[in-house]
Amino acid sequence: MRLLIDMDGVIADFEGEFLRRWRNLYPGKKYVPLEERRGFWLREQYPEEYQDLVQEIYHSPGFYQNLPPVSGAIEAVKEISESLNNVFLCTSPMIPKYENCVLEKYHWVYENLGGDWINKIIVTKDKTVVRGDVLIDDMPEITGSMKPEWEHILYDQPYNRNIKNRKRLTWNNWKQILNL
Amino acid sequence: MRLLIDMDGVIADFEGEFLRRWRNLYPGKKYVPLEERRGFWLREQYPEEYQDLVQEIYHSPGFYQNLPPVSGAIEAVKEISESLNNVFLCTSPMIPKYENCVLEKYHWVYENLGGDWINKIIVTKDKTVVRGDVLIDDMPEITGSMKPEWEHILYDQPYNRNIKNRKRLTWNNWKQILNL
Repeated sequence: MRLLIDMDGVIADFEGEFLRRWRNLYPGKKYVPLEERRGFWLREQYPEEYQDLVQEIYHSPGFYQNLPPVSGAIEAVKEISESLNNVFLCTSPMIPKYENCVLEKYHWVYENLGGDWINKIIVTKDKTVVRGDVLIDDMPEITGSMKPEWEHILYDQPYNRNIKNRKRLTWNNWKQILNL
Repeated sequence: MRLLIDMDGVIADFEGEFLRRWRNLYPGKKYVPLEERRGFWLREQYPEEYQDLVQEIYHSPGFYQNLPPVSGAIEAVKEISESLNNVFLCTSPMIPKYENCVLEKYHWVYENLGGDWINKIIVTKDKTVVRGDVLIDDMPEITGSMKPEWEHILYDQPYNRNIKNRKRLTWNNWKQILNL
């Protein structure tokens, strides 16, 4: 099996880090706890007058590099890569504000998984052009220029639970879901 | 037809910029003119005592971002993308010294091809995982974790002319070679 693993929201805790920074910077402002997040795009669940401030946080230098790993992700990814030869990290840059995220994703992988994993990173806006049997991703609908070759297994998050009848993976149930 | 186009040595003039900087920095030192380049790895054609200085040039900040386009490349790539819907830029980072090249490749595309092309960049060490009909690349042997789906058409350069019996493309003959 050839496995593709998304980064943000799957192995790197984008929402957790956002919330930590938001509450730190704006202790008096409303925030949406993770369990109450609905819809994929975080920004859209905040009042319109806050949306620029929300974006400023994840566009700021150091945000991507300092994302804490999703709980259990590093151990799971390393364990998976012991049984499968072909595990790749398949991630999309933030566009058009790619300035910080692209390089910082490399730093993140280097620091959290180790130098060998740099060879396993695939950065592409269009994930349908990547070959693989399974893609683990928290985004509900993944489209691109082709019919994908991979089966999309949803990484379970509160903000994608509106999507029904889909396989859901977490770093607690991955062995069962992937039959490993 | 789905077309993948490599960057360095195909649309971005890595060797030309290296030579310009080398001759500028070390006017008294031996250099290898482009027409005399043999073997894919530039560094290896320089005397051992110069090899660290050679590397220093292409590892330095600003090198990748400031590569001049290969003559005719920008016009050709734009023209190709008018007849083909699926043209992607497929590039590998310098590993382990990825610090400058990854982000600068994005800047280069933004500045030389325009913002829409950011969506067309695929950064991956292993190009065999990318789906496509044709890959235009100046590296003679491209291997990875899979048998590639694409046909490799060699971008003609003095340093790959030791490879015989292969289709060779330049930005002068691309219409004929690609039947476009």
